[in-house]
Amino acid sequence: MYMRNPKNNDPDSSHYSFPLDFMVIVDLCKMEVIKIIRLPLGSDQTATAIGSAVPHRRTNPVEPEYDHRLQKNPPRTTLKPYQVIQPEGASYTVNGYLIEWEKWRFRVGFNWREGMTLHDVSFDGKSAFYRLSLSEMFVPYGDPRNPVYRKGAFDLGNVGAGVTANNLQLGCDCLGLIKYLDGCVVAKDGSPAPRPNAICIHEIDNGIQWKHTNHRTGKATVVRKRQLVLQTIITVANYEYIFMWYFDQSGELAFETRATGILSTQPIDKDAKVAWGTRVADGVMAPYHQHLFNLRIDPAVGGHKNSFASTDTVPLPWDEDLNPLGTGFITQQQILDRAGTVEDDISKGRVFKILNENVQNPVSLTPIGYKLVPHRSQMLLARPGSWHSRRSEFCESPIWVTKYKDRQLFPAGDYTNQSLGGTGIKSWISEARDSVRNDDIVIWHTYGFTHNPRVEDFPVMPAEMAQVRLSPYNFCLFNPANDVPPSTQAFNKSVELTEKPASQNSSGCCSQPKSHL
Amino acid sequence: MYMRNPKNNDPDSSHYSFPLDFMVIVDLCKMEVIKIIRLPLGSDQTATAIGSAVPHRRTNPVEPEYDHRLQKNPPRTTLKPYQVIQPEGASYTVNGYLIEWEKWRFRVGFNWREGMTLHDVSFDGKSAFYRLSLSEMFVPYGDPRNPVYRKGAFDLGNVGAGVTANNLQLGCDCLGLIKYLDGCVVAKDGSPAPRPNAICIHEIDNGIQWKHTNHRTGKATVVRKRQLVLQTIITVANYEYIFMWYFDQSGELAFETRATGILSTQPIDKDAKVAWGTRVADGVMAPYHQHLFNLRIDPAVGGHKNSFASTDTVPLPWDEDLNPLGTGFITQQQILDRAGTVEDDISKGRVFKILNENVQNPVSLTPIGYKLVPHRSQMLLARPGSWHSRRSEFCESPIWVTKYKDRQLFPAGDYTNQSLGGTGIKSWISEARDSVRNDDIVIWHTYGFTHNPRVEDFPVMPAEMAQVRLSPYNFCLFNPANDVPPSTQAFNKSVELTEKPASQNSSGCCSQPKSHL
Repeated sequence: MYMRNPKNNDPDSSHYSFPLDFMVIVDLCKMEVIKIIRLPLGSDQTATAIGSAVPHRRTNPVEPEYDHRLQKNPPRTTLKPYQVIQPEGASYTVNGYLIEWEKWRFRVGFNWREGMTLHDVSFDGKSAFYRLSLSEMFVPYGDPRNPVYRKGAFDLGNVGAGVTANNLQLGCDCLGLIKYLDGCVVAKDGSPAPRPNAICIHEIDNGIQWKHTNHRTGKATVVRKRQLVLQTIITVANYEYIFMWYFDQSGELAFETRATGILSTQPIDKDAKVAWGTRVADGVMAPYHQHLFNLRIDPAVGGHKNSFASTDTVPLPWDEDLNPLGTGFITQQQILDRAGTVEDDISKGRVFKILNENVQNPVSLTPIGYKLVPHRSQMLLARPGSWHSRRSEFCESPIWVTKYKDRQLFPAGDYTNQSLGGTGIKSWISEARDSVRNDDIVIWHTYGFTHNPRVEDFPVMPAEMAQVRLSPYNFCLFNPANDVPPSTQAFNKSVELTEKPASQNSSGCCSQPKSHL
Repeated sequence: MYMRNPKNNDPDSSHYSFPLDFMVIVDLCKMEVIKIIRLPLGSDQTATAIGSAVPHRRTNPVEPEYDHRLQKNPPRTTLKPYQVIQPEGASYTVNGYLIEWEKWRFRVGFNWREGMTLHDVSFDGKSAFYRLSLSEMFVPYGDPRNPVYRKGAFDLGNVGAGVTANNLQLGCDCLGLIKYLDGCVVAKDGSPAPRPNAICIHEIDNGIQWKHTNHRTGKATVVRKRQLVLQTIITVANYEYIFMWYFDQSGELAFETRATGILSTQPIDKDAKVAWGTRVADGVMAPYHQHLFNLRIDPAVGGHKNSFASTDTVPLPWDEDLNPLGTGFITQQQILDRAGTVEDDISKGRVFKILNENVQNPVSLTPIGYKLVPHRSQMLLARPGSWHSRRSEFCESPIWVTKYKDRQLFPAGDYTNQSLGGTGIKSWISEARDSVRNDDIVIWHTYGFTHNPRVEDFPVMPAEMAQVRLSPYNFCLFNPANDVPPSTQAFNKSVELTEKPASQNSSGCCSQPKSHL
């Protein structure tokens, strides 16, 4: 329970800055209050009884508001406009939900639960992925006290990333030349409920793609890194999640998660501290929590029969003939035979690959593949056997591999509201240890944030970012970005900020004077 | 030894596509050839003897050239121009080497060995870092065979990141409104040798900084993420390294490394495979190698007396009173007392913080700090006791903490050319386990890539990227990006790519229609 800011009583005041010290249990069928629970305000379970003489202590944040209209001070004025111009239009084409851009070709889908999905993704004329989707998301909280110890939401299964998708607005959520795609979900009465502008598409410039200077001749060649971005944003009560797919000219595909919005807060006594939360403002405590996401990767690398490999890089043993200086190292590859989990090991430089063992790369003489670069993070903190743990089966391990089965899309089970466990990915695997080598397989990557709030996360949180990447690994015949045209001033039209006269070299672009030392 | 492309014999042909099968040992004092060694071409040490009847096998890459003028096909024509316009100028000011931007204030330095350095970095009026620098870089190769088993370069100690800094050209290496800074090194005769345009400075738009939609009123507030980028690029023979500092409005500072340029290659027989390298083209083998960097962080978080903490997030034990559902978790913080290494542990969600125990944040009631978010990677693969290992002391552990000492800047020792070990950071620490709590300390973060080349990395390599981040952790009183002005169409001037009429909502920016389901 929260209240509005008593100083402005505005409908857009951030009530998360003003948490109340009680919680109400309501029978939603009868719409009757069953019980009022006073919250603990100190460092332990102790709570003042309802009706006790202790009045609710008002909070007094340094800055309680995120809405600029309500902030204590006006916005800064130091920021100069920054505009992106594409005078000849976009480099991509959109035909319905079919998108083509720089050797990529794919279709976009959208549904109530998963929001944006990608289908039939091919690169350089070759199939890479059949279906890519965010499959689930669990947000358990770490405060061990009654009544908040139950708090844990499945934001996809309980709510839905499609139904909560923001209507993205020109000039607000994207920059540059923007194409919007609409989504659609189903209303209570079965009629279509459009989700206009649910996805925005635009290109970005992400610095340098590749460069080399021939130091013998001074000739430099530079190519810029253009990317295509598909973005969708969801609002789940206090939190916002931004999900972005980045397509790169090098054949890389990255899925970015940005967590922003507002911390879920609780009241706390003056000067009290708790071991499971941070004081983010006077009287306001933000409990530690986790955001655990699962990315479902249904690959089709050169076809549907794929394998999943873990490759370690390990030192060679000392050997008088073949490693006399102790400097040699090699790779050891293990291909997964049966459905199950795969552990990570950074100390071995472990790399995860989706391989097609039926298609050999004629250059490397090894199977074609795509590498999964995981976002490495802590798994579920709730105790094994707890309800949190039983219900969120996918949160135990960073990587799961299963054989493809119809209707297995949701790794915490189809129905997560008040679920009892036993219906998620761990249960599927324990029921059938299917063969997953050279078969139609699905890879499930669990990643997330253990979010122990900082004062800087209040009253609104700067986006916390994580990227999962999929990179071609001996999939092409050579660097697919080799033919990106050189970066030139005629094309880029940059401007030098200078007091001195413009550089003499600015016409003969990119030449590198030889060093004379 | 390499040859030019026999098909074009151009001075800018990529000779790395045409490796020869011998190596020459030269006495550099007498300039005399001492020995010619024939390279092994198969999967083991066996090499054909010099003068044997086996002729050198010519390589035949699918695409041997990266220079667009020499490539088999012309560049793609699908990419439309993308320009960045700042009509009112830059948001930063440059006064000599003093830069001020969005609550940040710092000075830029430059020298032969380290290239770009940062000094006296403060955020929001408060000291954060005294000096930030790339301190060393080691590139050992994994081919265990004579003569290449010796290959391993200290790119800073042996060569220098300042002396090899590229002269950055307008429209080639940066995009938008660019300010260049010149560097200077020393020539053989002691005279100044300018390194013009060694650093480029510009702003970028990196998507959304924060967003929240009040789902009760539909009011959305969005703020974009502007960043200031300082970039420098070095060419060390075949490889290019791009180093970038990103300053963020949220108080975050990120150091990005991009590895690009050309693989160091060796010849290989038709159809032969080796366990320590990849066939990247017909007859061309690229050996596995590592790039190990060390970032030196000399902090001054609220002053020079700082401490270094590792914080784990751990489950609470089951407890009838305080954790009856098994969902609770807390943090456990350990502060380093003596100079040494600090290990990582992702399974514990380990977070690394630089704290000032003398300055309490009045909101959180905990010390002010900055968090180090490391780039997690494999450490040195060469065997303990090998020359590689003895010479690259910093490559053993991801994090080192020392007490500040004058002239301790280079963690593989001051003189790395043909060094014998015993002069780097491990030696400093074993000589004196100084107290590092609440003292003038230095943090050294080793990170890198184990680079097992892909076919896609040839003939030129798409940039491989790694980021190390420094984020305020209870350093401010609230979100320092709270006062960034809202993202509006009037400011951003985006353009909708549309066949349908422009959205009705595009004037009333950012409002979010309430959902009616």
